[in-house]
Amino acid sequence: MRVSRALIPTLREDPGEAETVSHRLMLRAGLIRKVAAGIYTYLPLGLRIIRNIEAIVREEMNRAGAQEILMPIASPAELWKETGRWDFYGKELLRFKDRHERDFCLGPTHEEVVTDLFRREVRSYRQLPVNFYQIQTKFRDEIRPRFGLMRGREFIMKDAYSFDRDEAGARLSYQKMYDAYTRIFTRCGLTFRAVEADTGLIGGTSSHEFMVLADTGEETIVYTEGGTYAANVERAELLPEPEAPPEPQQPLQAVPTPQASTVEQVTALLRISPRQLVKTLLYSAGHETVAVLVRGDHEVNPIKLARLLGVVETTMAAPDIVTSVTGAPVGFAGPIGLRNIRIFADYAVKNVRNMVVGANKAETHYLNANWDRDFTVTEFADLRNAQAGDPSPRGDGPLRVVKGIEVGHVFMLGTKYSQAMNARYLDQQGQEQLAVMGCYGIGIGRTAASAVEQNHDAKGIIWPLPIAPFHVLLLPLSPSEAVTKKAEELYQQLTEAGVEVLWDDRDERAGVKFNDADLIGVPFQLLIGDKNLAQGLVEWKERKTGQVQKLAPEQVLALASGLAAR
Amino acid sequence: MRVSRALIPTLREDPGEAETVSHRLMLRAGLIRKVAAGIYTYLPLGLRIIRNIEAIVREEMNRAGAQEILMPIASPAELWKETGRWDFYGKELLRFKDRHERDFCLGPTHEEVVTDLFRREVRSYRQLPVNFYQIQTKFRDEIRPRFGLMRGREFIMKDAYSFDRDEAGARLSYQKMYDAYTRIFTRCGLTFRAVEADTGLIGGTSSHEFMVLADTGEETIVYTEGGTYAANVERAELLPEPEAPPEPQQPLQAVPTPQASTVEQVTALLRISPRQLVKTLLYSAGHETVAVLVRGDHEVNPIKLARLLGVVETTMAAPDIVTSVTGAPVGFAGPIGLRNIRIFADYAVKNVRNMVVGANKAETHYLNANWDRDFTVTEFADLRNAQAGDPSPRGDGPLRVVKGIEVGHVFMLGTKYSQAMNARYLDQQGQEQLAVMGCYGIGIGRTAASAVEQNHDAKGIIWPLPIAPFHVLLLPLSPSEAVTKKAEELYQQLTEAGVEVLWDDRDERAGVKFNDADLIGVPFQLLIGDKNLAQGLVEWKERKTGQVQKLAPEQVLALASGLAAR
Repeated sequence: MRVSRALIPTLREDPGEAETVSHRLMLRAGLIRKVAAGIYTYLPLGLRIIRNIEAIVREEMNRAGAQEILMPIASPAELWKETGRWDFYGKELLRFKDRHERDFCLGPTHEEVVTDLFRREVRSYRQLPVNFYQIQTKFRDEIRPRFGLMRGREFIMKDAYSFDRDEAGARLSYQKMYDAYTRIFTRCGLTFRAVEADTGLIGGTSSHEFMVLADTGEETIVYTEGGTYAANVERAELLPEPEAPPEPQQPLQAVPTPQASTVEQVTALLRISPRQLVKTLLYSAGHETVAVLVRGDHEVNPIKLARLLGVVETTMAAPDIVTSVTGAPVGFAGPIGLRNIRIFADYAVKNVRNMVVGANKAETHYLNANWDRDFTVTEFADLRNAQAGDPSPRGDGPLRVVKGIEVGHVFMLGTKYSQAMNARYLDQQGQEQLAVMGCYGIGIGRTAASAVEQNHDAKGIIWPLPIAPFHVLLLPLSPSEAVTKKAEELYQQLTEAGVEVLWDDRDERAGVKFNDADLIGVPFQLLIGDKNLAQGLVEWKERKTGQVQKLAPEQVLALASGLAAR
Repeated sequence: MRVSRALIPTLREDPGEAETVSHRLMLRAGLIRKVAAGIYTYLPLGLRIIRNIEAIVREEMNRAGAQEILMPIASPAELWKETGRWDFYGKELLRFKDRHERDFCLGPTHEEVVTDLFRREVRSYRQLPVNFYQIQTKFRDEIRPRFGLMRGREFIMKDAYSFDRDEAGARLSYQKMYDAYTRIFTRCGLTFRAVEADTGLIGGTSSHEFMVLADTGEETIVYTEGGTYAANVERAELLPEPEAPPEPQQPLQAVPTPQASTVEQVTALLRISPRQLVKTLLYSAGHETVAVLVRGDHEVNPIKLARLLGVVETTMAAPDIVTSVTGAPVGFAGPIGLRNIRIFADYAVKNVRNMVVGANKAETHYLNANWDRDFTVTEFADLRNAQAGDPSPRGDGPLRVVKGIEVGHVFMLGTKYSQAMNARYLDQQGQEQLAVMGCYGIGIGRTAASAVEQNHDAKGIIWPLPIAPFHVLLLPLSPSEAVTKKAEELYQQLTEAGVEVLWDDRDERAGVKFNDADLIGVPFQLLIGDKNLAQGLVEWKERKTGQVQKLAPEQVLALASGLAAR
């Protein structure tokens, strides 16, 4: 493709609307343009990246035995009413009426439509397992769409749905998808981790998120170096700590802590480590208020707390509740003397001797509190977020922490949808059985955006070769006849060899071209200048490292053809 | 692909919902399934056909220099208000509000969105011409969706939009698209014609429809054998006829025609040719009623009449108007004695001497009426539909008539949208100029359906090779070990040679497999049976002709590889 004949509207300045690296760079490199909040047009280069990702996804889904279909974007309300999601789903489900006043939604996901297809067309155990997938535009009416393709309202997704005879079969289908996803993100050239994820309210039995690792990621992941364990921090399990050697208990002592209510303030004032301080936090869980104790350097995990209490969710208690329960302003709650309230403590609290806690009195803390002497803990449990250095629940060393972006999610659904929609098959005995389902999503646009978050520098994007819009950017450094002729010749030869070449044939200064080349991030640049050409050489530059080799054109041809064939 | 592992739910019976051949066969062959009225899921085989057509379209659009982009399905109302189409478009435009009560529509076409992109991103004459295209799902809320993919509500379309510096450039862009469309439908293996089409209310300067020829088509096309002229019958121009040699005028005579008001009845009663009868039809044109005379064997073309009168449209006058104007019941109107009404006559009427016309009196006609003696014609003009045998307006012989299905449309838009949306570029003198536009559509799903209308027999579909879901259907005739082994071997070898093979590996009777094979319509069938195999032979059968050749497996490999490479 010739730059002069393509719409690649690069921007010199950072656009005001962009909040994240990928959003900023995808706008600046001329890959996408906003049409409305969370709704984008993919320009030629942006679409090429999307298509490259789609092609990899398609190949690996087919290889895993999934069948590609295409379900409609408009989804009739009747199906959604069968599963109850027409009412359950909030405003993210974009609803509309057709001209005959029939209710529809723009599909944000397709469990209902695919389960309807299954129950109509699949009859026998002999046809199972099946896995249907599609690559389709979806719509989710996010309240605050942002970050460009990262959290859009209209977005391209690959979604797949497996149907099995039983739980064991469903686990196999799940594993096949897990393996396919691993191949997909590997082939996309991304550094990622599959992590155990919370099944949340959907209540499935198993779930993994595929996270592209990037410092700018919204999700926190813990993992072990050996790779045997990785989980979303909200999900990561922590085991009880081995009991620490006993320590003499010091006498309890109240001390004034004027204007010191936060961990930082109290530890600075008392010159203690945050590990010595124990925070007392009140949570509302249904109609009950409970106290949760965690170490000063730890954070409460409300999902774990909810799971322990058997409630849907827990939230921090409002300040007036804190005051009425503790008799003190927020920041001075403590376990000693608390009445009519269950006190849960994180496992790590058990080993803190002579701890500092709030005294349920304004501007006062206790020194040398001990849980077996001064107050009663209802239960010790895993109640906090994991953090770097925590021991792996698999016993294979300390956990590490990275940030990531969720690009894929595999999910064991069980019979939630087949039950609601009566999707049954006939088993070998001629008995009707519910199909056991799984669902599997990949955000195509988000994968592109996460590739940018992971692969960029101050100058712009550095595309991984397999999803790059082009393999090589051909950059003539002067308008001389010799350079133009050689550029044309190489463009022809490379293109014929299957190398995808973007040829910057514009009548622009070399500096402008260099900047655009680095911004757009084609992995290799082929520079043709008069001086080198006089010696029969051209320059081959790797975008990522900046390394330049002077090569004969034939060498470039061989090198580039090899890359394209990968 | 193995049939046993694919969802190909063929049906033995014709589904009740299907009204046309393509709809019936696409359901029966398991290509599509209805989700709601005019809304379908594409099953694996159906999607393969769609993707094949898309691939051909994409290649030819790229070859023609168009750039692929992807615009969103959700289209903000503001853009549509700029062109007035938010109000002008009727209920076919599906509108919805997002969670913030902002108005959107599901795009049935993208002139507004692409013109907005143009005005934001394209500045200079140096960037012109440009042509942006997309292959995208569109939505048109048809009042009566029907015929499966032929007239759906949600459908896949390729739409392209060209922007040029001036009218001359726009004509070149138009011609490039015309040529690309010709290549596309040729490569799809379809018999088609590009015909001059009416520009209708859009008022562009030029327009062609691409019609796939099929007896079941809804459109009527006239063309000359030499191929220099082809037009939609509504658009086809007819020139004045050469004057016939004079004939003696007979005396006017009123005759009773009891119970004879139609052309068939009057000509039978009076034993005359319909060419001798002249029909008098009253049309409402705005506030005026006019009389139109056409020969008994001709039909009035209301679009031509409207164009002649300079009105938006003309419609047949209501019976009460006919009665009040003529003083007679419908069926006996005639030109003699009509007052205060303009009388327009088709060119062909001029040569009818001693014609039979209605007498404006119940059950009465005149014999031997002559326009230059008995009544006054305001104007002779081209006012009827062309029909087989009419002379070509290009003077190259008689017109022929065929039925067709519109699958593509190319359109010169002029500055209608660039004017409304102020889409300007800077010319060489630095002056702002309006871009001159064209738009170009191809219905992808409709192309698939029209291929079926054109290519089928009593047994099922006969896909043209380039868009067929598979090249070869591999059909083992027995479950014997030798046959199974050879089938597996040939499946591997053919697949490796790039041949797309559908392998019917089901444990079914050969009869069932034959029926499904003919129904699905893969162009070639490879039959493997014990008897032939014992002689080292397999059967190679062409679906279209039913011709069977006995060949050695190596010959089949060579043959099939050659086909796939086409």
